[in-house]
Amino acid sequence: MSSRYPLLDAIAAPQSIRQFTPAQLEELSADVRRFLIDSISSTGGHFSSNLGTVELTVALFHEFDFLTDRIIWDVGHQAYPHKILTGRKDRFPTLRQHHGLAGFLKRDESPYDHFGAGHASTSISALLGMAKARDLQHQDHACVAVIGDGSMTAGMAFEGLNQAGYLKAKHFLVILNDNDMSISPNVGSLQGYLNQIMSGQYYNRWRERIEATIKAIPVESVSRNVAKVAKWSEESIKRLMVPGLLFEDLGFRYLGPVNGHDVNATVKAIQDAKKLMEDAPVLLHVQTKKGFGYEPAVQDSQKWHGVTAFDAEAGEMRKPAVDPSRPTPPSYTTIFGKALVELAKHDDKIVGITAAMDSGTGLDIFSKAFPDRMFDVGIAEQHAVTFAAGLAAQGMRPVAAIYSTFLQRGFDQVVHDVCIQDLPVTFALDRAGIVGADGPTHHGLYDMAYLRCIPNIILMAPKDENELRRMLMTAVYCGHPAAVRYPRGNGLGVPLDETITALPIGKGELLREGDDLLLAAIGAMVAPALKLAEELAAEGIQCAVVNARFLKPMDSDLLATQAARVKGVVAIEEGCEPGGFCAAVLETLADAGVVRPLLRCAVPDHIVHHGDPKRLMDEEGLSPAALASRIRAFWKRLA
Amino acid sequence: MSSRYPLLDAIAAPQSIRQFTPAQLEELSADVRRFLIDSISSTGGHFSSNLGTVELTVALFHEFDFLTDRIIWDVGHQAYPHKILTGRKDRFPTLRQHHGLAGFLKRDESPYDHFGAGHASTSISALLGMAKARDLQHQDHACVAVIGDGSMTAGMAFEGLNQAGYLKAKHFLVILNDNDMSISPNVGSLQGYLNQIMSGQYYNRWRERIEATIKAIPVESVSRNVAKVAKWSEESIKRLMVPGLLFEDLGFRYLGPVNGHDVNATVKAIQDAKKLMEDAPVLLHVQTKKGFGYEPAVQDSQKWHGVTAFDAEAGEMRKPAVDPSRPTPPSYTTIFGKALVELAKHDDKIVGITAAMDSGTGLDIFSKAFPDRMFDVGIAEQHAVTFAAGLAAQGMRPVAAIYSTFLQRGFDQVVHDVCIQDLPVTFALDRAGIVGADGPTHHGLYDMAYLRCIPNIILMAPKDENELRRMLMTAVYCGHPAAVRYPRGNGLGVPLDETITALPIGKGELLREGDDLLLAAIGAMVAPALKLAEELAAEGIQCAVVNARFLKPMDSDLLATQAARVKGVVAIEEGCEPGGFCAAVLETLADAGVVRPLLRCAVPDHIVHHGDPKRLMDEEGLSPAALASRIRAFWKRLA
Repeated sequence: MSSRYPLLDAIAAPQSIRQFTPAQLEELSADVRRFLIDSISSTGGHFSSNLGTVELTVALFHEFDFLTDRIIWDVGHQAYPHKILTGRKDRFPTLRQHHGLAGFLKRDESPYDHFGAGHASTSISALLGMAKARDLQHQDHACVAVIGDGSMTAGMAFEGLNQAGYLKAKHFLVILNDNDMSISPNVGSLQGYLNQIMSGQYYNRWRERIEATIKAIPVESVSRNVAKVAKWSEESIKRLMVPGLLFEDLGFRYLGPVNGHDVNATVKAIQDAKKLMEDAPVLLHVQTKKGFGYEPAVQDSQKWHGVTAFDAEAGEMRKPAVDPSRPTPPSYTTIFGKALVELAKHDDKIVGITAAMDSGTGLDIFSKAFPDRMFDVGIAEQHAVTFAAGLAAQGMRPVAAIYSTFLQRGFDQVVHDVCIQDLPVTFALDRAGIVGADGPTHHGLYDMAYLRCIPNIILMAPKDENELRRMLMTAVYCGHPAAVRYPRGNGLGVPLDETITALPIGKGELLREGDDLLLAAIGAMVAPALKLAEELAAEGIQCAVVNARFLKPMDSDLLATQAARVKGVVAIEEGCEPGGFCAAVLETLADAGVVRPLLRCAVPDHIVHHGDPKRLMDEEGLSPAALASRIRAFWKRLA
Repeated sequence: MSSRYPLLDAIAAPQSIRQFTPAQLEELSADVRRFLIDSISSTGGHFSSNLGTVELTVALFHEFDFLTDRIIWDVGHQAYPHKILTGRKDRFPTLRQHHGLAGFLKRDESPYDHFGAGHASTSISALLGMAKARDLQHQDHACVAVIGDGSMTAGMAFEGLNQAGYLKAKHFLVILNDNDMSISPNVGSLQGYLNQIMSGQYYNRWRERIEATIKAIPVESVSRNVAKVAKWSEESIKRLMVPGLLFEDLGFRYLGPVNGHDVNATVKAIQDAKKLMEDAPVLLHVQTKKGFGYEPAVQDSQKWHGVTAFDAEAGEMRKPAVDPSRPTPPSYTTIFGKALVELAKHDDKIVGITAAMDSGTGLDIFSKAFPDRMFDVGIAEQHAVTFAAGLAAQGMRPVAAIYSTFLQRGFDQVVHDVCIQDLPVTFALDRAGIVGADGPTHHGLYDMAYLRCIPNIILMAPKDENELRRMLMTAVYCGHPAAVRYPRGNGLGVPLDETITALPIGKGELLREGDDLLLAAIGAMVAPALKLAEELAAEGIQCAVVNARFLKPMDSDLLATQAARVKGVVAIEEGCEPGGFCAAVLETLADAGVVRPLLRCAVPDHIVHHGDPKRLMDEEGLSPAALASRIRAFWKRLA
């Protein structure tokens, strides 16, 4: 049987692409796209962004040798074509699977992966570091970053441009992959500016301005023929008005826009860029379409941003088989979105804020109900946090929904703008804990540690979706900064209270009594702890179980009282080992003078791989089975 | 005796300024400047930046009523005139003194302080939040931010502009206070752009471009009189070429530049801005000079940025009286700078990175020795960290020197770009611990907690300046991310080893044996702990003392062995109570199965005031006397 990707299959090393003819480049692009559709439809993964970068990637490999030249793909979820062309095609069936091919670039996965990234907007800064390292080491290879227009909204990208222009970095190419999107439609005035360039409105605006100025010239000063000047050809005006003036003002040479789905036009543009790169950093503006070449993904690139396996013919994603007698519980994300709507119905001070993650955080639900009270700031977590602080300073009740891992980007703002001023901003941290397929850059492991050290903040994690609703209300009305962290995925299927009610601040919940061990758990680990206690009771080990609810302030009375009754304490959390919940329990008991052996059950202090969340939990010693055996061993040591 | 500031003294409330005549505005400005020089010369404080904003502040109070209108001063160290005009003049003798008038704005200090800030670049984001809160509450007052050109280099400011332009925020005024400086001379291409505007080069560049375009028009298409068009008056070209096009492209109306030391010209510009603000956000570009009106500060605004008390007549800062028989030990900052030069002499892979803090971090010393290997990225900590990661990825040994409190701004980059990829970047964290006069926004309290949770990083804190040198070397050559945190101020005066040598990773140091208590300390608290142990020994309490050296990895063997010998453990650190060194000791002992009562001596979990560092340490229970009494009480409970 002949291959579906004959030219792609024939490539032994990406260097061979450098000799390809224009026709071969087109053929290779078609092969890569076909392979992507075939492969991702069976494994799932990031989809529409990768269909958008096929021709750009092929063109880059035609023009550079990335064994010596450097390339950084911003975010990296558009770099599957890069992976396909650098010897990893055959591993695509394992994409984002447990310990399989990573979804992002990874330095230890390939010599072609020069810098990894799962968070946006880091590429220009890292590339500039590489370029300076090159200069200091008297090398002269090219440095290339590919960054989306969505990533450009983050201030970090601006910081990188600002220094690169200032240093007049040579052989330094930033490719702006402009598809009018982050994961959701892109926002911000920069996007409006790019759209003006794209649509020709930028020229129009300038033409109008020039015509108005010409009209204002006193008639006596020029001949009447000046009217003809106003008819300058489009070409002249274009030559005058560099469309990317904003980038030129920052010290870059601007080239573009070029159609990023015309591989040979893109090659030509890169060749032009290479000439300019001798003198100054260059920004090449490439226009692409997310999902290009697969119609359903073009129509709804947001839906097709990250996909499960799908039927490529029918254009339909496969849904997991559901047992109708056991309906799937709603996700924490949906519960959060609906609960916020519920609260906001009775309180017009509540506003929602997200950073390019409206559907990911469930704020799309809020947005539909209260469009005027919803702010998507784009990929700009720093701004999101301080914007929320400004709202709170004027009496609003802002709720900023940001993934646990992305709030890291706004850490200083949480400290400096929100907590030092004790402003009542609520942070809803979705995707806390181990997230699975996205891996190391996306696990929400550090939030409990990095937030717990800040004064004034109230920190909670719900044991189930009903408690999430109560904690959300508690946070919104506590009058202080507050954060609720909850996991990716579905709730437990517990019944929801008819009316949402707040929790008493700093009070935990004793779920089970026991005189041998105290299992102190928080968030998603409470339910497994309770189950474990039953299992251990059958073995004759009586465990008290506390749902801490509050990481801060912690229920010192409850923990100290219960700990004093037992021989040892087990603290259980889905967060990083140092400084999180287990540390909080240790501190609380030490301060209360209750001295007991304590077993820390948390995510060990190393980089957690990507893959199947359940198997990862097992590997990290946090699956029910792993926990049970650790607790048994602990008990044995005590006895 | 007649007052030196008659008009200033006569102001009962800032609202009265609204009726002032042009002559009165000038007189008031002169009064404020005279008051500033008189007052700061006797107390010390931020100086040159405040001399630069006198007229601007007076003009703002002429045009707005900041009981209803909102104002945010970015950073706030240029807001003394604002404080002087809002009823706090008489408190200036207590400026930055212990529990006196704060050096920055503070929401609980005055109804005119709408938003506090000690870190740069937060004003636009916070102001936009306030503007949206205003809109949602159907109010219509003005919102004004004053931000320096230095603060504009931080990406966060760009994020704010990007959304403000997009939302077309009304009655929204950003005043760019352009003085060509952050604390040090400003860097970045944005600064080059602003300079072009200032010097008229921007017009020139455009005039050349237009002339070239006109020449390129085919002769037949227009009359020969077109040559005259090239002689358009300067005025016409200016009208065509809005100098602040970069801001216009981001959705702002640009006005300026205006001379910010001409108070009536500034009033006029603000009046123009107020008209434009009906339709769109406005950026008003004001040119000022740091130190204006006090010649020594104009000549060297960096030296006069933050001053001790000085002789205003002579233009000389007063030096603290020194006992010649006991020379002042060198500062940690200087020791760091010199040690880095020492290491870099033998290793051309070492490069230095700072974020607008070259002299503050001691990197000015490195910069003089190795100008080509020094990078000041401006106020852009995020970029600084990832830029360092890029350098490390290409084999360099970057050392990023950033104040503890400012590294918060680069937290995500430390996690995502440096530590997840295990890249060998060294972070030198100056100003760790309680910093004194700058207060809550500047204390370096959280670093141990927010860094300790990240995998792969090696964390150290030196007990004295000689150990700092050794730790710096250890960090640079450990092959992993590493951070060394050390306090503001002078070392202990210990002798320095002739040659710098590295420390064994993860090994602490037993300084004293003892069977009653173990004092486990780190960094600046080691010396006091040792002294305390001697004091307590005299009382019959024998304390072992461990210098932990490494916060991570912690010397588990040493701590467990020593803890096992005693009745109780005291952990001592100059860092925040939750999650830092004390937590690390608790975790280490719990994991080792050594169960002992533990007293946590750390900075309590609340906002620490500004003021005299020694008195603050005492208030927080960390002075030698406070520690001694806490440890005695702890010992009594154990006995």
